[in-house]
Amino acid sequence: MNIETIGLVHSPFKQVEGVPIQPTAAKDVKGTIEIKQQFAEGLSDLDGFSHIVVLFGFHLSTGCKLKVKPFLDDNLRGVFSTRAPNRPSQIGLSIVTLEKVKGRTLHISGMDMIDGTPILDIKPYLPMLNPNGDIKIGWLENAHRQFEHKKADGRML
Amino acid sequence: MNIETIGLVHSPFKQVEGVPIQPTAAKDVKGTIEIKQQFAEGLSDLDGFSHIVVLFGFHLSTGCKLKVKPFLDDNLRGVFSTRAPNRPSQIGLSIVTLEKVKGRTLHISGMDMIDGTPILDIKPYLPMLNPNGDIKIGWLENAHRQFEHKKADGRML
Repeated sequence: MNIETIGLVHSPFKQVEGVPIQPTAAKDVKGTIEIKQQFAEGLSDLDGFSHIVVLFGFHLSTGCKLKVKPFLDDNLRGVFSTRAPNRPSQIGLSIVTLEKVKGRTLHISGMDMIDGTPILDIKPYLPMLNPNGDIKIGWLENAHRQFEHKKADGRML
Repeated sequence: MNIETIGLVHSPFKQVEGVPIQPTAAKDVKGTIEIKQQFAEGLSDLDGFSHIVVLFGFHLSTGCKLKVKPFLDDNLRGVFSTRAPNRPSQIGLSIVTLEKVKGRTLHISGMDMIDGTPILDIKPYLPMLNPNGDIKIGWLENAHRQFEHKKADGRML
């Protein structure tokens, strides 16, 4: 099974502290993803999509913790019930707005990634693959409204 | 940056041909994900969530193609505008229903993964992180209704 860095993020965020913890908190933040020349052909047809799913490496994460204090909570939670970076596989997921594709540069808004973040994969965002009906969000039921204004601090380093 | 296989899929699908191409086509298909003992502690608090995002390895994918014929189309498309397995980083993404957590076994429905698939990460599904407003889905605009009944064939091998 192959894992490649297909490109790199250019972002106004140069360090972890102060980064929005999800694109919903960074709607107006713009940045680019530059895809490596050898993978540029794979960008065909992407310009028809308004949103993309970005898989990236938490390259500043310094290790794995199975219980973490999430940014939205002060209780220890199992890492798989959180989006925290200190995961066994240090893969992050952001759904961002694709403003335009210019050559091998993706112009995006909703940037919540740090400058220099390695990109592992780009997938089209397809709302019809989202579940319908009753959706339960566990411990985030009370905390999730904070996504929109909470910033990262040093706790995950 | 660390990538770990945190567990394995047990699924009724033993080969690629005939597998539903997304969980939306596999709503009633049940299976389990068995998390390795050393990562089991990370499952705390997950049982409060009704749906999870599963990142897995396309372990049967035999290589990378930058232009692919998707299951839903007979035109060649840039791989990043598709969910096809022949990607530079062979990482798949499925949003499935978490029926229950029993020890280190996740009972799920909406199983569209092949038996033996390696699991890289589990994240909580959080609908408030989905984009709102006008969403464009490019070449899939006409094809996406087939997600619900289309099965995989041998074209990606």
